[in-house]
Amino acid sequence: MRKATGLLALLALCGGLAALAEDAKPIDPGVLDDLAAASRILADQAVVDAFGHVTVRHPTNPQHFLMTRSLAPTLATPADIVELDLDGNDVNKTGKTLFLERLIHAEIYRARPDVMAVVHSHSPAVIPFGVTKVPMRAMFHNSAFLARGVPVFDIREKFGATNMLVSNREIGRALAETLGNKAALLMRGHGDVIVAPTLPLAVFRAVYTEVNARLQAQAIGLGGPIETLTADEGLKAEDVNAQIVGRAWDLWKRRVAIGKAADKPN
Amino acid sequence: MRKATGLLALLALCGGLAALAEDAKPIDPGVLDDLAAASRILADQAVVDAFGHVTVRHPTNPQHFLMTRSLAPTLATPADIVELDLDGNDVNKTGKTLFLERLIHAEIYRARPDVMAVVHSHSPAVIPFGVTKVPMRAMFHNSAFLARGVPVFDIREKFGATNMLVSNREIGRALAETLGNKAALLMRGHGDVIVAPTLPLAVFRAVYTEVNARLQAQAIGLGGPIETLTADEGLKAEDVNAQIVGRAWDLWKRRVAIGKAADKPN
Amino acid sequence: MRKATGLLALLALCGGLAALAEDAKPIDPGVLDDLAAASRILADQAVVDAFGHVTVRHPTNPQHFLMTRSLAPTLATPADIVELDLDGNDVNKTGKTLFLERLIHAEIYRARPDVMAVVHSHSPAVIPFGVTKVPMRAMFHNSAFLARGVPVFDIREKFGATNMLVSNREIGRALAETLGNKAALLMRGHGDVIVAPTLPLAVFRAVYTEVNARLQAQAIGLGGPIETLTADEGLKAEDVNAQIVGRAWDLWKRRVAIGKAADKPN
Amino acid sequence: MRKATGLLALLALCGGLAALAEDAKPIDPGVLDDLAAASRILADQAVVDAFGHVTVRHPTNPQHFLMTRSLAPTLATPADIVELDLDGNDVNKTGKTLFLERLIHAEIYRARPDVMAVVHSHSPAVIPFGVTKVPMRAMFHNSAFLARGVPVFDIREKFGATNMLVSNREIGRALAETLGNKAALLMRGHGDVIVAPTLPLAVFRAVYTEVNARLQAQAIGLGGPIETLTADEGLKAEDVNAQIVGRAWDLWKRRVAIGKAADKPN
Repeated sequence: MRKATGLLALLALCGGLAALAEDAKPIDPGVLDDLAAASRILADQAVVDAFGHVTVRHPTNPQHFLMTRSLAPTLATPADIVELDLDGNDVNKTGKTLFLERLIHAEIYRARPDVMAVVHSHSPAVIPFGVTKVPMRAMFHNSAFLARGVPVFDIREKFGATNMLVSNREIGRALAETLGNKAALLMRGHGDVIVAPTLPLAVFRAVYTEVNARLQAQAIGLGGPIETLTADEGLKAEDVNAQIVGRAWDLWKRRVAIGKAADKPN
Repeated sequence: MRKATGLLALLALCGGLAALAEDAKPIDPGVLDDLAAASRILADQAVVDAFGHVTVRHPTNPQHFLMTRSLAPTLATPADIVELDLDGNDVNKTGKTLFLERLIHAEIYRARPDVMAVVHSHSPAVIPFGVTKVPMRAMFHNSAFLARGVPVFDIREKFGATNMLVSNREIGRALAETLGNKAALLMRGHGDVIVAPTLPLAVFRAVYTEVNARLQAQAIGLGGPIETLTADEGLKAEDVNAQIVGRAWDLWKRRVAIGKAADKPN
Repeated sequence: MRKATGLLALLALCGGLAALAEDAKPIDPGVLDDLAAASRILADQAVVDAFGHVTVRHPTNPQHFLMTRSLAPTLATPADIVELDLDGNDVNKTGKTLFLERLIHAEIYRARPDVMAVVHSHSPAVIPFGVTKVPMRAMFHNSAFLARGVPVFDIREKFGATNMLVSNREIGRALAETLGNKAALLMRGHGDVIVAPTLPLAVFRAVYTEVNARLQAQAIGLGGPIETLTADEGLKAEDVNAQIVGRAWDLWKRRVAIGKAADKPN
Repeated sequence: MRKATGLLALLALCGGLAALAEDAKPIDPGVLDDLAAASRILADQAVVDAFGHVTVRHPTNPQHFLMTRSLAPTLATPADIVELDLDGNDVNKTGKTLFLERLIHAEIYRARPDVMAVVHSHSPAVIPFGVTKVPMRAMFHNSAFLARGVPVFDIREKFGATNMLVSNREIGRALAETLGNKAALLMRGHGDVIVAPTLPLAVFRAVYTEVNARLQAQAIGLGGPIETLTADEGLKAEDVNAQIVGRAWDLWKRRVAIGKAADKPN
């Protein structure tokens, strides 16, 4: 695993150098619209409350990523979006207040060039899995990406008693290392992180991780053995999800069209 | 069971031949309105999310059925409805994108001439019963149809590792065979199928299957033996449901009147 | 218990004779408004869905009671209210369709002269207690009336396999007998009945019976012994509820003011 | 503990004398707006229903506190706010109906000079912890204040069979003594009390106590040991919460802006 992560980091670095070589272009407004919508969707779907954040890798510079300034996710608009580098610096020095935990995103983008979008949330049904020894399993095809396994990051193991936040680069790196090549990671006593090769798929996975947690808790409550998706079934069902994600994304985006969201923040 | 299914298929075939003999008539707009409403009701009642579908057998040609094009159920309008044959072909070659899993419906209509409407969903409280060995039982009279028994279709038994979808006719047939003469069937790691002799009753059964799943999970959580409806009680209570279904159907339809649904898609 | 019930019935009869002696007066419109509001409140508070009903004893003729015609509770208006006698007859022969289960109410009014209002519902969190052997207990002061005990009526004991409904006077009587002098009764595989000395208190009790069922299920899930309200605590806390019920009633009534209810039926 | 409480009370007394020495000033309207908003927020966030109350210590006179008259929390406006002394008297003799349980607040303000705001509610997921022997623990950083421990006040221990209310000063004192220097206290068969050094933090803690109760119940349902926040982690995470509380407070306040709340009382 470690060796693979090192290789991925090297690839990411090359991508970054290539990006620096070309002129800076303004970011496609559709990318900003989608990122702000993703933030509002996660609030509308009850994955985030006043806290949590979603980011997307910069469309042309893989060494940068886009994130809103520090604000409640349901209030996000394109104007709130800031461009950050992988050290978490505000590239354009906008002076906006940034999320403390932007390093979660930065270190994952550094370690995983395949990752184009990251969600961090306190997804309520998921938190109990992070504080118990019960591993999350894929209960149905919409959460197939969980069949790859869901590691738990316990900040205390390496960093002792902390305020539970990923407040510096070292913690971010350790988290990214625990994530490995998986799509989801639980943070003990805190929340979870979801990654994906596209923004809509990251939102889709975040929503269905929450759904899956409820399903698994209910299945455990029924008693007896649980037939989860096998690794093989998971991989095959992931292909389907990649094809159908647009149906969910389009619907969810309609629900949070600006104006609606402003009228009824969640 | 198998013999019975064969007989039913023969009867269905005869019905189809009879239908071909008469001239094609335009479909009553009320049928289309009701099917689109049924789709929106299932979203409003939280039986479906961005996924799932409901169909109705063609009112005059039992070899055809009606289904919306592939879209989120809450967005369904009469204009989205397509006429399909029992091989899943778009009879009028509209070119619309079709649901991949239309064969669930097709093969059930083929095998069960008594079935006039079919719902497929990822009904959230129901999924846990499909991945455990706990059989669903009727907790109260509104879900009396469950007292007939609720089989579980595990796609892996005959088809090995798949993407969990009913993606071809063979899988559809195997599912219909597992359904037998029941009103509800669970799909392991996926969702469920509900059938009924009328569209409103199919929606009613889908809603109360979800309700029943929550009730049964809660009853199990309380501990100790559970007194479910007996087979006799179930049959007698089913008669009542057939009489009162209109009260629920009318109410639910009011809630999703077009305009409302468009304003606030679920 | 039986002897007491007989005495109560005798008292009720005397009340009825007294009522017959005075001239019939038109019913105070406030009574009709409140009954229709009570019906809509129970829908708004998720105690009833498309089914269930609430009634109030006639304000001047204790041998009669008021109930809406058969319709979804959230749609109730004063114009839907019918006056019934204790045999369930429509006194004014309005020709309106009546609820089949009006005899639940009739037989309780006959047996319990202290009861002025009755709610019958399929209160979702309550049903599991009716199909298990776990007795409902008062978890907190708002549900203090449960500390008197909550009997379970199993229709099968006297009437064998039925459609689960209280479809005739004999079943109604048996139910009223099982209720005894309690405030709440569970119906196995069906729902529950709540009674009270006033309409607002009947609604209050119906709401907090549902709340209590959720609380008790959660407490059982936590494990270990549960300290419920004692009988003494229950009686004392019931006095408080009788004093504060108006605060809840007024709030709930505001939420279902006509116009709102019509716009968004539940 | 007792000695510490005595010292705190002495400090509070000194503060009060100091306050009496300066002239009475009108209360900053922002304080009244915030207190009414806090009340509506608690309803909007489902911590309170028709019952429950939040108070804030008087901004310049620590021997007084502010509380709405007796009404459903979602209806609170600045005009409903009354100034009370630590005996629960209406200082300005407004004649408004007061909450019976204002002595919960009074006695806590007397015993805990560090406390500036108090919430009392029947927070639904929390009640089960008060009737079982399962101690509440901090499941994640947003509820870090629970890591200090959550005592249970059983009114029966000192006062025998009561109506479960804190209906006099002696009961209020005993409750405050059980609270000690903690941030949260459970009341057996009744609800809970939350205290904090600021009003927004009291609301934040009340909301996340409810959230934490759901998380802990779910974690228990999963089975096996639970890794809660340690005391050290709790203290460190409390510092973070104090910094980020504004993000939640601002969002929640937007949701209950007057006009909205009036249109749709909860």
